[in-house]
Amino acid sequence: MNNDTICALATANGVGALGIIRVSGNDALSVVQKSFPAKKLEKQKSHTIHYGYFVDGEEAIDEVMLSIFLAPKSFTTENSVEIAFHGSPHIGKRILETLIKNGARMAKAGEFTLRAFINGRIDLSQAEAIADVIASENEASRKVAINQLKGGITNEISFLRTDLLNFVSLIELELDFAEEDVEFADRSALVGLLNKIELKLNSLIESFQYGNAIKNGTAVAIIGKPNAGKSTLLNALLKEERAIVSNIAGTTRDTIEEVLHIKGHAFRLIDTAGLRETVDEIEAIGVKKAKEKVENANILVYLADAGTEDFSEDIEMIKSLLREDLKLIICSTKIDEVSPSVYEKVEEIFRNEIANEFDFIKISAVENQNIQDLKNELSSYVEQLKASENNVVITNQRHFEALQKSLDAVHKVKEAISFQISTELLAYELRNALEHLGEISGEVTNDEVLGNIFSKFCIGK
Amino acid sequence: MNNDTICALATANGVGALGIIRVSGNDALSVVQKSFPAKKLEKQKSHTIHYGYFVDGEEAIDEVMLSIFLAPKSFTTENSVEIAFHGSPHIGKRILETLIKNGARMAKAGEFTLRAFINGRIDLSQAEAIADVIASENEASRKVAINQLKGGITNEISFLRTDLLNFVSLIELELDFAEEDVEFADRSALVGLLNKIELKLNSLIESFQYGNAIKNGTAVAIIGKPNAGKSTLLNALLKEERAIVSNIAGTTRDTIEEVLHIKGHAFRLIDTAGLRETVDEIEAIGVKKAKEKVENANILVYLADAGTEDFSEDIEMIKSLLREDLKLIICSTKIDEVSPSVYEKVEEIFRNEIANEFDFIKISAVENQNIQDLKNELSSYVEQLKASENNVVITNQRHFEALQKSLDAVHKVKEAISFQISTELLAYELRNALEHLGEISGEVTNDEVLGNIFSKFCIGK
Repeated sequence: MNNDTICALATANGVGALGIIRVSGNDALSVVQKSFPAKKLEKQKSHTIHYGYFVDGEEAIDEVMLSIFLAPKSFTTENSVEIAFHGSPHIGKRILETLIKNGARMAKAGEFTLRAFINGRIDLSQAEAIADVIASENEASRKVAINQLKGGITNEISFLRTDLLNFVSLIELELDFAEEDVEFADRSALVGLLNKIELKLNSLIESFQYGNAIKNGTAVAIIGKPNAGKSTLLNALLKEERAIVSNIAGTTRDTIEEVLHIKGHAFRLIDTAGLRETVDEIEAIGVKKAKEKVENANILVYLADAGTEDFSEDIEMIKSLLREDLKLIICSTKIDEVSPSVYEKVEEIFRNEIANEFDFIKISAVENQNIQDLKNELSSYVEQLKASENNVVITNQRHFEALQKSLDAVHKVKEAISFQISTELLAYELRNALEHLGEISGEVTNDEVLGNIFSKFCIGK
Repeated sequence: MNNDTICALATANGVGALGIIRVSGNDALSVVQKSFPAKKLEKQKSHTIHYGYFVDGEEAIDEVMLSIFLAPKSFTTENSVEIAFHGSPHIGKRILETLIKNGARMAKAGEFTLRAFINGRIDLSQAEAIADVIASENEASRKVAINQLKGGITNEISFLRTDLLNFVSLIELELDFAEEDVEFADRSALVGLLNKIELKLNSLIESFQYGNAIKNGTAVAIIGKPNAGKSTLLNALLKEERAIVSNIAGTTRDTIEEVLHIKGHAFRLIDTAGLRETVDEIEAIGVKKAKEKVENANILVYLADAGTEDFSEDIEMIKSLLREDLKLIICSTKIDEVSPSVYEKVEEIFRNEIANEFDFIKISAVENQNIQDLKNELSSYVEQLKASENNVVITNQRHFEALQKSLDAVHKVKEAISFQISTELLAYELRNALEHLGEISGEVTNDEVLGNIFSKFCIGK
């Protein structure tokens, strides 16, 4: 591994009171020293802060504070210096130019974290967690990322992997003594361990659905006949949200989604832009378009006007939209406009016609009644996802895939044992399972995987 | 002065690898301690860095590094803590919320710097310089701001002010012994000092024109008849600039200006948006509009097509636009299309008709000939402004006004002496001059002035 000295802006782009430039590598101290005449840096202790001017030759660039971290007690485990300057982007640029003149080079995306991983300070899943912590936009995603940063998933599987490794050693020992037909590894104990691993892997894999809800939010489609009250409901839901409404990255102008936060979880309201504009939407777009909309949704909120006399169209629409993995909430709207005897019948009608499980909520968005009930229903969907006892939640597609491959491999090992397959093949399958388990923490990895992970980081991390 | 504990985000808004939250005040350590169980903060030395989790009660918010600065060795001279967190705005918000729960309050704009000033660590002109350093967008503005931060203007006038203060003491002593008709203060020495102060004030006041060019850039209007080659010239000038072209803050969409940097100085090309779109501009807008355009310019670049046979319209236009404080550059364009004998005559024609001093440049923007000459001419305009021997450059309107008031007051004192006015009145005029001189460094100030200065800072500074 190259330990040449790298530098980059670590703080967000833009004007601030302070900006921080990170420098790390074998020559970090001497590179910065060339521009910091105030003190002898090599004589300073680790974790100390030093005031002075950062200069380019004779010229003072800015008044700065240097934070010194000596190897191995730094983020990268290398000698590191953080330069805090007055947060003008122009000054940041001048300092970086000078550092490069002094012998540093610009860091690549994620290179500081890559070094922390390569040098053994953090494992791969922790390195990924750092990116997740930085990207966390709400409480749920922050909590999962921080848990992951503390070593969550690695802790969950590393001791199982160690136990499995012991078995592999014993099995391979058997290979060495193949002619003597001994059995060092207790097959039934091995199966017991494999069952434990299987259980753990299944529970982690299951948590990915919740992890996805955390990382990407839960997609909610709101559908209903014209004038069923969609626009009013949206306004009521988003009233407190206005200040924090944000566009989901990756969506285009045409399909801007509004985001609603309930108890720290994000709910993406699908294609509300269109919903809000067209009143006679279903007539205009038909069942086909509604289906497309609901296709990517986790939850369908169907609005039915309580004052309607015939719900057959609504029922037909709902039936055509339902999927097994779609949560259905039927909202009887405009209950303020009808008598209790009428809207109580509405639920009965839907219950009689729709076999699937659904929640039924009576709302009057105009009077803001029971909007909270709807929010609670949405929230309970996410709460149910995390019902698993697992504290560790998988949010990362790469981890999910590695866990599935591990599970497949474990199945194969179990099969191999039950078929009393040759020890050679058993050892091979076990090695395969070990490898997939090791991929998560980075104990087993390759440059392509690393390049793929770290290139998604921002520069300066 | 209140020393309650304040907190704010110090780094730029947005996602970065790191974000910094500043905490300062009497209780800074104990406020942060409530959320930092890893170490006893009061036992730590100043200028040291500490790793741990920032918590809200039982909940870990983020992994952080704390930098501790103990009074009086901090920016504000108060106990201060800087919290470096993973740069997610959501996490920054959670940490600030927790700090406020712990007893801090959000800092007002500029409040950290205000405290540094009130507590005597920096003078007022240095406090203002910090804002200028942060806002500096090019080398010229950075250099002037850093010089100011080092105490530039205060150094220039403080010893003169001290000498003047001595005279005031002597004059006031004379008032105490008024009945004895003694003269402690040597009037001719006083006049000598006043002359020195006058000279210094004049030179500082003069530097404001250069200061303005640095801070706001030099405004350049490019005018010419249709097809004189404006668009081509603009493209040639801005070719290397494309990457750093920026909009000037405060200008509206309609009057977007393009900015050209030459030797670290900014040149704002006035209303080029219009220029680039309309080819038959002068016909369309007429002399009136052209005048409006040139009104706010420091430099007029007039383009005259070398192939034209009759320059009378051009000459008329130039004459109508000229002002005493407007630098005129006449460019003979398209010289690649005419013979040398023709374009040499062009200069003669203009020299004969236009009495004012002007630079004449032959350019062919298409072939990029002599574009550098034009850039040099623009640059020399700014260089001439700084011709004064003064190292300190006034960029601040408030300083400019205080210097002018001081100069007025000095004139009045000199007048008073020459008219042999009463000692009482002389003392009054001297006090007046002292006060204006003191306004710059903040030795004399009031809450309104301070409020006005610091409210323009960003939060966190």
